[in-house]
Amino acid sequence: MIDTDAVVIGAGPVGLFQAFQLGLQEIRAHLIDALPHPGGQCAELYPDKPIYDIPGIPLCSGRELTDRLLQQLAPFQVPMHLGQPVLFLQPLPDGRWQVGTAGGTVLRAPTVFIAAGVGAFVPRKPALDGLEAFEQGPEPQVRYFGVAPDALAGRHVVVMGGEDEALGTALQLADTGSCASLTLLHRVDKFRADTALEQAARSAIGAGRLRLVLGQPVAMEKSQGAEGPRLQALRLATPDQPEGTTTRLPLDVLLPRLGLSPKLGPIADWGLVMERKQLVVDTERFATSSPGIFAVGDINTYPGKRKLILCGFHEATLAAFAAAAIVHPERRVLLQYTTTSPRLHELLGVNPTRA
Amino acid sequence: MIDTDAVVIGAGPVGLFQAFQLGLQEIRAHLIDALPHPGGQCAELYPDKPIYDIPGIPLCSGRELTDRLLQQLAPFQVPMHLGQPVLFLQPLPDGRWQVGTAGGTVLRAPTVFIAAGVGAFVPRKPALDGLEAFEQGPEPQVRYFGVAPDALAGRHVVVMGGEDEALGTALQLADTGSCASLTLLHRVDKFRADTALEQAARSAIGAGRLRLVLGQPVAMEKSQGAEGPRLQALRLATPDQPEGTTTRLPLDVLLPRLGLSPKLGPIADWGLVMERKQLVVDTERFATSSPGIFAVGDINTYPGKRKLILCGFHEATLAAFAAAAIVHPERRVLLQYTTTSPRLHELLGVNPTRA
Repeated sequence: MIDTDAVVIGAGPVGLFQAFQLGLQEIRAHLIDALPHPGGQCAELYPDKPIYDIPGIPLCSGRELTDRLLQQLAPFQVPMHLGQPVLFLQPLPDGRWQVGTAGGTVLRAPTVFIAAGVGAFVPRKPALDGLEAFEQGPEPQVRYFGVAPDALAGRHVVVMGGEDEALGTALQLADTGSCASLTLLHRVDKFRADTALEQAARSAIGAGRLRLVLGQPVAMEKSQGAEGPRLQALRLATPDQPEGTTTRLPLDVLLPRLGLSPKLGPIADWGLVMERKQLVVDTERFATSSPGIFAVGDINTYPGKRKLILCGFHEATLAAFAAAAIVHPERRVLLQYTTTSPRLHELLGVNPTRA
Repeated sequence: MIDTDAVVIGAGPVGLFQAFQLGLQEIRAHLIDALPHPGGQCAELYPDKPIYDIPGIPLCSGRELTDRLLQQLAPFQVPMHLGQPVLFLQPLPDGRWQVGTAGGTVLRAPTVFIAAGVGAFVPRKPALDGLEAFEQGPEPQVRYFGVAPDALAGRHVVVMGGEDEALGTALQLADTGSCASLTLLHRVDKFRADTALEQAARSAIGAGRLRLVLGQPVAMEKSQGAEGPRLQALRLATPDQPEGTTTRLPLDVLLPRLGLSPKLGPIADWGLVMERKQLVVDTERFATSSPGIFAVGDINTYPGKRKLILCGFHEATLAAFAAAAIVHPERRVLLQYTTTSPRLHELLGVNPTRA
């Protein structure tokens, strides 16, 4: 249980800047994100694609923007709880809020900032009934995020997918050469990936370091062991087989790499006023219908709303001012400028001297 | 007379970004500023002081921010009318607006964006009745902005002031050595300037390349020549003289360098709804009380308003969307992303390819 001043849900560009603005207001914040790294949609969906409309930055990639915002935020040493989708948001009797994540983190704070974009980015899962049973435990057989190659040594590993992430994961494992067997499973013999990555994968397949299997998993073979159920093999429908028959793909570990899809998740269940899956806010404080809960960035809506990162920056700033009135009710919230305020210089750890 | 889609009054950071956002909306804009260079308050008052709260830019000076915004704006080749305070804003019978500047520029457009900050920055003037008579003409005797040293060769020149700008101007002229005489006129024997600049000035004074005169001008001596009235000398009240007596400082050219002060100017006379010297706008379009006229940045007010540059960027963006509905009524205004829109890539003159 962590007590703090503010919880920011979402570590995309707007969530990161939200935490920065809270820092300027002397509000201690924690950041949470479902993804295992900061940057959100921007770093996830277009890490290398140029963005041209961030004010004062004629050109940057999603990854660069994330790095810049992390650098700006650094003075405030904001704790980040990553790879942890939010599970619940509950009111406490004392007027504060309690936020719990799938990682078991529980935070309590008087203010919460929902900067969740189009929702949490969650890995796309193979359509197999009962797969969840193998996603749990200390050594799960089905793993969606980065796995240290060492943990897979001596195992029969299947990487599933046909885009950059799948090929990259398969190649990384092929290079270590430590798996008992390594299979790339994809629907068809066609990849949607970076040219160099595809060439490297084709070359690994040609050299026998990586086996390519075409097919769609339609069922699982399980066994019941001492430690619970165990996944033994996938049953595949393959393009060259008669309908209704399947082939068997034995495995120890399945690494689905099918990309991510945004999921609004439990936000819709928190009793906040919504319009077309967006949280309704005012334009003075960017406050939702529940006191202390703010919504900024693509997840909110108000008259004139445009889903642009730069608009989220403004929203986060005004929300931070509004939060200061809640967290520091004893102070008068003043507008200070980072250019001139000695107090802000102290908080930022800078000491500008006159040239 | 220039016909265009939009006139942006103020070439500070928000005005520059306004023109950029108008460019993305395919709205042709002209920029006007009272100062002879872009950047506004930010480049004028703290060109070298660090700013820490521009999103994604952990640290930059006012000058750097201006340069970055100019670079971002460059693809749209927006004409700038600088050193031209706006004199009037008038409605035209066809619903458009007519904007006239002190430089004689007249622009007509369906939309006007007032991004004037705290008003036009105008040079502080010496308190001398009738001084205006010598500010006009092809070779004015009283000059407030940069003058090429060549134009002052062989003249008796007086630079007035005791801060960076005055000392810098005096030193620049002392270095050319081409004036018939060069005097620095200041109230007291104390400067408020950069240490290095002050040392250089003291050294020039010690070496006789620059004469320091202490005193406050209280009157002028004029003569009537063939080409009109001519300023012959200033009458100074000096610290070491009995009250009521003055000394005489003859001159050909006076360069007051007393800094700039913001002046709301004629904006207050345009019939727009104001509150405490700010233009009242809505938060959906940042429109003023007159159709087609928007106000963005420090000059506007609305519930929650904070005078921050980053808020002005948001305001300018939504105002540009609102203007698109006026300038291109035949089109549906869609949100396009600079990351993905081929049309925006074309407008920006970029051709991003997949890595």
